[in-house]
Amino acid sequence: MIKVGIVGGTGYTGVELLRLLAQHPHVRLTAITSRGEAGQRVADMFPSLRGRVDAVFQTPVEAQLGECDVVFFATPNGIAMQQTAELLAAGVRVIDLAADFRIADVATWEKWYGMTHAAPDLLADAVYGLPEVNREQIRGARLVANPGCYPTAVQLGFLPLVEAGLVDLSHLVADAKSGVSGAGRKAEVHTLFSEASDTFKAYGVAGHRHLPEISQGLTRMAAGQAVGLTFVPHLTPLIRGIHATLYARLTAEADLQALFESRYSGERFVDVLPRNSHPETRSVRGSNVCRIAVHRPQGGDTVVVLSVIDNLVKGAAGQAVQNMNIMFGLEERCGIDQVPLMP
Amino acid sequence: MIKVGIVGGTGYTGVELLRLLAQHPHVRLTAITSRGEAGQRVADMFPSLRGRVDAVFQTPVEAQLGECDVVFFATPNGIAMQQTAELLAAGVRVIDLAADFRIADVATWEKWYGMTHAAPDLLADAVYGLPEVNREQIRGARLVANPGCYPTAVQLGFLPLVEAGLVDLSHLVADAKSGVSGAGRKAEVHTLFSEASDTFKAYGVAGHRHLPEISQGLTRMAAGQAVGLTFVPHLTPLIRGIHATLYARLTAEADLQALFESRYSGERFVDVLPRNSHPETRSVRGSNVCRIAVHRPQGGDTVVVLSVIDNLVKGAAGQAVQNMNIMFGLEERCGIDQVPLMP
Amino acid sequence: MIKVGIVGGTGYTGVELLRLLAQHPHVRLTAITSRGEAGQRVADMFPSLRGRVDAVFQTPVEAQLGECDVVFFATPNGIAMQQTAELLAAGVRVIDLAADFRIADVATWEKWYGMTHAAPDLLADAVYGLPEVNREQIRGARLVANPGCYPTAVQLGFLPLVEAGLVDLSHLVADAKSGVSGAGRKAEVHTLFSEASDTFKAYGVAGHRHLPEISQGLTRMAAGQAVGLTFVPHLTPLIRGIHATLYARLTAEADLQALFESRYSGERFVDVLPRNSHPETRSVRGSNVCRIAVHRPQGGDTVVVLSVIDNLVKGAAGQAVQNMNIMFGLEERCGIDQVPLMP
Amino acid sequence: MIKVGIVGGTGYTGVELLRLLAQHPHVRLTAITSRGEAGQRVADMFPSLRGRVDAVFQTPVEAQLGECDVVFFATPNGIAMQQTAELLAAGVRVIDLAADFRIADVATWEKWYGMTHAAPDLLADAVYGLPEVNREQIRGARLVANPGCYPTAVQLGFLPLVEAGLVDLSHLVADAKSGVSGAGRKAEVHTLFSEASDTFKAYGVAGHRHLPEISQGLTRMAAGQAVGLTFVPHLTPLIRGIHATLYARLTAEADLQALFESRYSGERFVDVLPRNSHPETRSVRGSNVCRIAVHRPQGGDTVVVLSVIDNLVKGAAGQAVQNMNIMFGLEERCGIDQVPLMP
Repeated sequence: MIKVGIVGGTGYTGVELLRLLAQHPHVRLTAITSRGEAGQRVADMFPSLRGRVDAVFQTPVEAQLGECDVVFFATPNGIAMQQTAELLAAGVRVIDLAADFRIADVATWEKWYGMTHAAPDLLADAVYGLPEVNREQIRGARLVANPGCYPTAVQLGFLPLVEAGLVDLSHLVADAKSGVSGAGRKAEVHTLFSEASDTFKAYGVAGHRHLPEISQGLTRMAAGQAVGLTFVPHLTPLIRGIHATLYARLTAEADLQALFESRYSGERFVDVLPRNSHPETRSVRGSNVCRIAVHRPQGGDTVVVLSVIDNLVKGAAGQAVQNMNIMFGLEERCGIDQVPLMP
Repeated sequence: MIKVGIVGGTGYTGVELLRLLAQHPHVRLTAITSRGEAGQRVADMFPSLRGRVDAVFQTPVEAQLGECDVVFFATPNGIAMQQTAELLAAGVRVIDLAADFRIADVATWEKWYGMTHAAPDLLADAVYGLPEVNREQIRGARLVANPGCYPTAVQLGFLPLVEAGLVDLSHLVADAKSGVSGAGRKAEVHTLFSEASDTFKAYGVAGHRHLPEISQGLTRMAAGQAVGLTFVPHLTPLIRGIHATLYARLTAEADLQALFESRYSGERFVDVLPRNSHPETRSVRGSNVCRIAVHRPQGGDTVVVLSVIDNLVKGAAGQAVQNMNIMFGLEERCGIDQVPLMP
Repeated sequence: MIKVGIVGGTGYTGVELLRLLAQHPHVRLTAITSRGEAGQRVADMFPSLRGRVDAVFQTPVEAQLGECDVVFFATPNGIAMQQTAELLAAGVRVIDLAADFRIADVATWEKWYGMTHAAPDLLADAVYGLPEVNREQIRGARLVANPGCYPTAVQLGFLPLVEAGLVDLSHLVADAKSGVSGAGRKAEVHTLFSEASDTFKAYGVAGHRHLPEISQGLTRMAAGQAVGLTFVPHLTPLIRGIHATLYARLTAEADLQALFESRYSGERFVDVLPRNSHPETRSVRGSNVCRIAVHRPQGGDTVVVLSVIDNLVKGAAGQAVQNMNIMFGLEERCGIDQVPLMP
Repeated sequence: MIKVGIVGGTGYTGVELLRLLAQHPHVRLTAITSRGEAGQRVADMFPSLRGRVDAVFQTPVEAQLGECDVVFFATPNGIAMQQTAELLAAGVRVIDLAADFRIADVATWEKWYGMTHAAPDLLADAVYGLPEVNREQIRGARLVANPGCYPTAVQLGFLPLVEAGLVDLSHLVADAKSGVSGAGRKAEVHTLFSEASDTFKAYGVAGHRHLPEISQGLTRMAAGQAVGLTFVPHLTPLIRGIHATLYARLTAEADLQALFESRYSGERFVDVLPRNSHPETRSVRGSNVCRIAVHRPQGGDTVVVLSVIDNLVKGAAGQAVQNMNIMFGLEERCGIDQVPLMP
């Protein structure tokens, strides 16, 4: 059994990690920390876990994370970078669900995240945990930077086009819509039920932190070519789910359907739908799957890709467990093979 | 492997049954029928099942249900009663998720369901499939009448009080609220999104078909005493979930919390919450659990019970699989042990 | 033009008051205060009011409320009681949308609200602002205690029965369901979209502050007889709306439909539906109307009343304007005659 | 008083028209027709109109529409074109809320709507009822083609840019999201609550009927230049509201904020928000306003416009009344000046 620790399990990615790990046959949760909730039973905070998770929140001191095989950080940005070096030194592997190790360029990270990076020397060791791109590197990684939710949906949607060099990289558009759980479990007015239901809005048009993460990923796929991306996130009144609608101008001819099917043929967690499909976010609710459809409206030179994930699973906790499975040589689908909940 | 057939898998109880059976280690789906959809792949109708269910809808003739070990009817009322005798004769066990075999008294059934019963002689063989009450009878049953969704939540909530003879049976009140999936997957105006969201209403106050089913169950628990029940169902804007708020007048003193905990101490799928709790429907979303809290406001003589289930799981498909597990001697939780999806 | 001031216009009752007053032909908003938002334009906080409300939030000092004809308190409990005496002394009439003056008995108020009452001597002057009961007293009032949302729906539903002495007062049940806006516009985890949507729960079963308010009202209707009420509030995933389902045991025969129609025949804002109706909360969305249906299931001795209001209108701001209209001799429907928004 | 008739008042645009006309000081509803509902009181079907609309649905024969001053068609596509000639001949003015007269080119219309046009000769007389573009022509029109909901939001968003010649017309993108009421009040599975809530999807990517309508409008704004538009509509779980996110490549420099403010400076129903704003659909819920924000992310050459309307008001019934007001010389805001409902 793999000994697992979780730092910061009181948010939505934390409770989702607990849901998945509780159903994983090869792990044992040995510690979960929360300064604010230390001493409270996890299942008292999250009654959905009653009878399934016996753990009690501990202080970081009590938790003895150094004895774990792997520690997940389900914390706000800026925490993992302070504790990772010590854990790695103790031989513990680390998977950070926050953004601390996602951006290779320190200056870029510091600009978008508004703080000084506490562990810039670790960035070279961090592997960006998108298995469909980096599986081999993840296998040997000590430190995995789990991708953001929008970046997962957008990168998987653009990936076959960009790798194949078929689109104008200077004018990509990603119009993305997220369920409200993406904003986390913080008490804030703008995500109250009465503020966020029965309404729809864009936000962060001037610049969202996932923009540089996506741009970095697309540039790598494009073998280093610069990418011009317009990224507009929206808040939509559903709990879980991201729907990315991607637009690009074709610069060469190709059978797009065949391209996508071929690129993802061996991937259990990426499902390319038949021609003329429209994936719904609910078709992946509670599951680790990304479903993708590719369109070419009216046969013109604009390609439209539709990509959906559950932001808390493939966009966060599920992908983190997928990365853990790869790192520890387990079957990749272990513990994350739930059938989506529909309706 | 148990060979399973499903009649009528195009509604919500059908697709939920498919979700659960797809994750059950000891069953193989050998046939699924739908006159309207014959020839279509199940996963084309329900993309959430892509990669998990390979079945194709067949006509009843093609399906050869007589070769199954067990057949689930996930059909409208009035279908199972026409086909059950033949299946039983072929040695197939039957679990009806509709109402055909729930009411022992034919006249009562015919009055509330507005049709002539096609198989009144089978009613004596049918076991009412509420495991927490009838587990032993279910074990040997050839024909199980799976309880309705409201009746499951209401009966489990009243059960300890009625069995213990603590309440005035002549004036019980069950104020129940259901998510919209309880109305099924039929195209109707009143359950359109624009009609059923952002609103709340009662319906069927003059009389709902689940009233005689609940009354029959409570009367049995009360060893045959007559029961006076006022049952008011409501439609609430959520997909899955039933919340029953039950009111009764105490006629004797007792430690109600201890009573409930004791009655359900061995039950994996009934969870009695600590004193002063308020179960939420989402705490059982996608799971087979019923969570219950018991209150005595201001220490008066009115007891209030709060009982929540997922109407499609413990209120339908999950309980049906639980019954199958009991009938076939499997572990009761097999295939229905998913952790609730939260948020 | 009536000069109107609002204290605390940043919550939902405040912005709703602004919506209604902006469409009222005989009022002029002369001041609106908020310590936290002083200096900000109201329409910058609430873009729905752009082009319709020019006001800027002021500090209480700047606002010169003493020059208003009437001041509405749309504040948390405990504020109005500190400022009302001074306003009354300046000849300003006061309508408190919070609970400070709703309970005549100081000890009861202090027990349920957990603070010392700052102006117990004003309680005798305060008129409980339920026009369908107290219209004449409201006409001459200087200080109106605007009823709570649950109390409005519950009292209007029970009123004809209690006044007529037809029901057992010792065992009344009010099972009430509220939209989430009833919890206000405070940043709290439990009313986040991801916590409060797609779920349903009871709360405050042990005791809710609206219980003594309702009990007081029912007792007055019953000419002083004691009332035994079980009140269970629930949170339901809709923005606006309260649905009260009321249960009582009949102690005498009567034509209930005729009774209700007769009692409310002259009331513009109470609509008694035809026999066998089920009012929906959306049928009053955005309007000051209370719709009521009365049932007697299976002809038994239990009467069921269904009563719906918009908690922010008839349950708060609309009723406050209705009271203002009565106090100032205007047509009662002035400014609050909007047709409900459907769908 | 203007005598108004409505053909087909049982859908959402019909009931919304009734809501607005019930509050209009200068109109009298003299006839409303529905073959299916003839004889039924309108308020029995729509309880929100109880006490406000006394009308009874009539058959077309009974209704004597020829005596009206104006007739609104709130019917499915293909009805108005059959009855308009006769009404015009009788001196009745006609406003069609459906699509029959929106496309000037008959062949294009017939291709997208899949039927033969019954009155091609009337197309030349029909004025496209977008007041912000065609106010003068509407003033003298006998027949107004009320714009579609998506076309209203998209055209008002692109209008200043296209008129000013600032963007590359060959690659415009309109990513639009609609509330479910846009699909109408038809009983269909895909718009059931349990299908359309808590999920998000695109539809009609291969081609939506509003595409040629928008393209026609943009081409006119561009003085006849061809336009290359990619239009992707999405279904989002809210009742009312359209959010259009528009992308275009700038071909010249300009102060975009000033451009938009100037273009719409005199327009009561178009509200240009301050720089860096994100309009929400709820900020226009129940109102005839379109709110617009213009962005230029990272100062690049891509302009992003955000445009929101209530699809049933500015996108249908409200704009129809606005057109009527213009046609009859009334104040343009008459009857459609409600403050949005928030929250």
